[in-house]
Amino acid sequence: MRKVAIVGAGMTRFGKFPGRYIEDLGAEAALHALEHAGMSHKEIEAAFVGNVTQGPSSGQRILDYLGVCGVPTLNHENGCGSSSAAFRDAYIAVATGVFDRVLVIGVEHMTRRMKGLIEFDDGMNLLADMGLAMPAMFGLMTRRHMDEYGTTAEQLAQISVKNHKHGTLNPYAQYQKELSLEEILSSRMVSDPLTLLQCTPVGDGGSALILTANKLARRYTNKPVLVEASAFTSVKYKTGVGAATIEGCVRTSREAYETAGVGPEDLDVIELHDCFTTHELIATEDLGLCPKGEAGRLVMEGVTALGGKIPVNPSGGLLSKGHPLGATGAAQIVELVWQLRGECGRRQVEGAKVALAHNAGGIVSTIEPAATSVTILAG
Amino acid sequence: MRKVAIVGAGMTRFGKFPGRYIEDLGAEAALHALEHAGMSHKEIEAAFVGNVTQGPSSGQRILDYLGVCGVPTLNHENGCGSSSAAFRDAYIAVATGVFDRVLVIGVEHMTRRMKGLIEFDDGMNLLADMGLAMPAMFGLMTRRHMDEYGTTAEQLAQISVKNHKHGTLNPYAQYQKELSLEEILSSRMVSDPLTLLQCTPVGDGGSALILTANKLARRYTNKPVLVEASAFTSVKYKTGVGAATIEGCVRTSREAYETAGVGPEDLDVIELHDCFTTHELIATEDLGLCPKGEAGRLVMEGVTALGGKIPVNPSGGLLSKGHPLGATGAAQIVELVWQLRGECGRRQVEGAKVALAHNAGGIVSTIEPAATSVTILAG
Repeated sequence: MRKVAIVGAGMTRFGKFPGRYIEDLGAEAALHALEHAGMSHKEIEAAFVGNVTQGPSSGQRILDYLGVCGVPTLNHENGCGSSSAAFRDAYIAVATGVFDRVLVIGVEHMTRRMKGLIEFDDGMNLLADMGLAMPAMFGLMTRRHMDEYGTTAEQLAQISVKNHKHGTLNPYAQYQKELSLEEILSSRMVSDPLTLLQCTPVGDGGSALILTANKLARRYTNKPVLVEASAFTSVKYKTGVGAATIEGCVRTSREAYETAGVGPEDLDVIELHDCFTTHELIATEDLGLCPKGEAGRLVMEGVTALGGKIPVNPSGGLLSKGHPLGATGAAQIVELVWQLRGECGRRQVEGAKVALAHNAGGIVSTIEPAATSVTILAG
Repeated sequence: MRKVAIVGAGMTRFGKFPGRYIEDLGAEAALHALEHAGMSHKEIEAAFVGNVTQGPSSGQRILDYLGVCGVPTLNHENGCGSSSAAFRDAYIAVATGVFDRVLVIGVEHMTRRMKGLIEFDDGMNLLADMGLAMPAMFGLMTRRHMDEYGTTAEQLAQISVKNHKHGTLNPYAQYQKELSLEEILSSRMVSDPLTLLQCTPVGDGGSALILTANKLARRYTNKPVLVEASAFTSVKYKTGVGAATIEGCVRTSREAYETAGVGPEDLDVIELHDCFTTHELIATEDLGLCPKGEAGRLVMEGVTALGGKIPVNPSGGLLSKGHPLGATGAAQIVELVWQLRGECGRRQVEGAKVALAHNAGGIVSTIEPAATSVTILAG
């Protein structure tokens, strides 16, 4: 396997854009990434596109709008982890020499297409049939975590306080407004103990990355970011670990750490999948950033805030930056590429050298994400 | 790149199964392929799943139902070419040594999910906005072919006669009934000159393939089928070739022939994308089976029928075997694996050694499939 570099990263602002389409959102993100790389669109050899709900040939429709044509375009769906799945296949294609320069796009227009998701439950998915949609699932997991480790509602809500504060420093974030612990705790209850402001919003947006064989990277930038590991696993039944642990997160991150030859103690900055505050709480532990049961304490002490020892979700995370499903995985990597290049302005983690992205998507008949992706990058 | 072998191939019968779901259709096909390979489901290292309309995590939902868990599962969408896109990524992953044994599944439940397709046109797709859906597009292409080459309505309809006759020999075909030229020509007009019986039906079904590194193939079968080429391209604007030629078919097949080191004259059996009779007419020419403009004559002379020199669509093709979108690409390869192993009973092409599958999917703002796949196999 060859070394793979990311030489360009771009995204749209996330938000509610009822008059826009995935075609122009995806193209804007791709143009931003191409410009970041100083690369012509004519150099792109293949495209890998992550999207959940926007119908057939999403990637081709975006590339058509962008004016790129004739390159193999592969569209990936893996729920909220769709563009990480696209990134994973793009990484393999470059690492193994199939292509030298590829484009990854993540995109979603949720304000137009939520229906596609709600209709999901006409399959044989027993959990969905019972009403165990995402908020319900994470509500149950939260209760279990509280029961096992004494985690409090305040600790949980503090995660949202932190991420919304980070969001105020990110011009690409859907929400750029500080929220107090009080405001978060007193917002409408969605799935006890998760209040509205602890759940990701509905939003639209696009994100894009340019990957090249590392030997070509310096033609485009003097700050290439290396992909040290791209681990991707799908759901596995739990083996006695309990609902307060997400085994996919444990397994996938351990595989990534081993491949990259680093451990959680080596990470300078992390973007993780905080679709609900609970997911950040549990992933903080399951990625090995602290012992099991201590994430609540960690966030209260500011360890995972910007300026703390292990900044988590400096972009604002899914909670504040937003979560247009297919766009999220690639957008996490966009943020980390910018962090490792020192381009994040007021939310810059000084001297960041090693970064980790954690993205998860989908559910089937078990309380685990259907797909989990962990990417380790080095600047 | 290592040599890749197909060691197992299975499918459900195609048809209208309102009480079934993609989970059990996909699992039935996968079990059939595993049984064909004599492989345990525990040996599968990754799954690549093609599906268009069935919502998030389709592959994980099928694997969950199948009892396979914990393997990376990547879901691919490329319209009617979805499982060829999945096959292509699976092929790359095995050829480059990322995995040794992978499962490819194609699946669709159209009787439940046509809505998802019809809703497609809320994007920025100008052709769809103008009503240029598939039948309209192929109607226009047919008229152009008639104008340029003198192709007749009878020649066109004869393709459907042939494929329906082939379908009577295939127990997996949705339709197993001979149709006369008269019946086909006098059926309801859909898009002049395409009558109803020259258009693929709505249907449900699943198909599956097991790919291994060739060095492992003989553990599972003494009749491995080698993948000699897997070419996959996306839409490119035409450069003055006219609407009676599908440039994606020309480009992709030439790439595949070059990789495999064979030409159209070496092919013993072909499965091609006859979503409408027109598509078989044009692909017969664009794959190089005959000079441009002569496909009508070829079919009238029986050259492309079973027993002819170049049997095309012995399975019955999309017209008679059926076309559950995501299932089609893998199902074409299933038929060819069976043909190359001499397992096709009454529709067997005797002594078939080299086979080609041609699959296409999607449209964007040009009269070309958004994705085209050509696979060359050797028995």
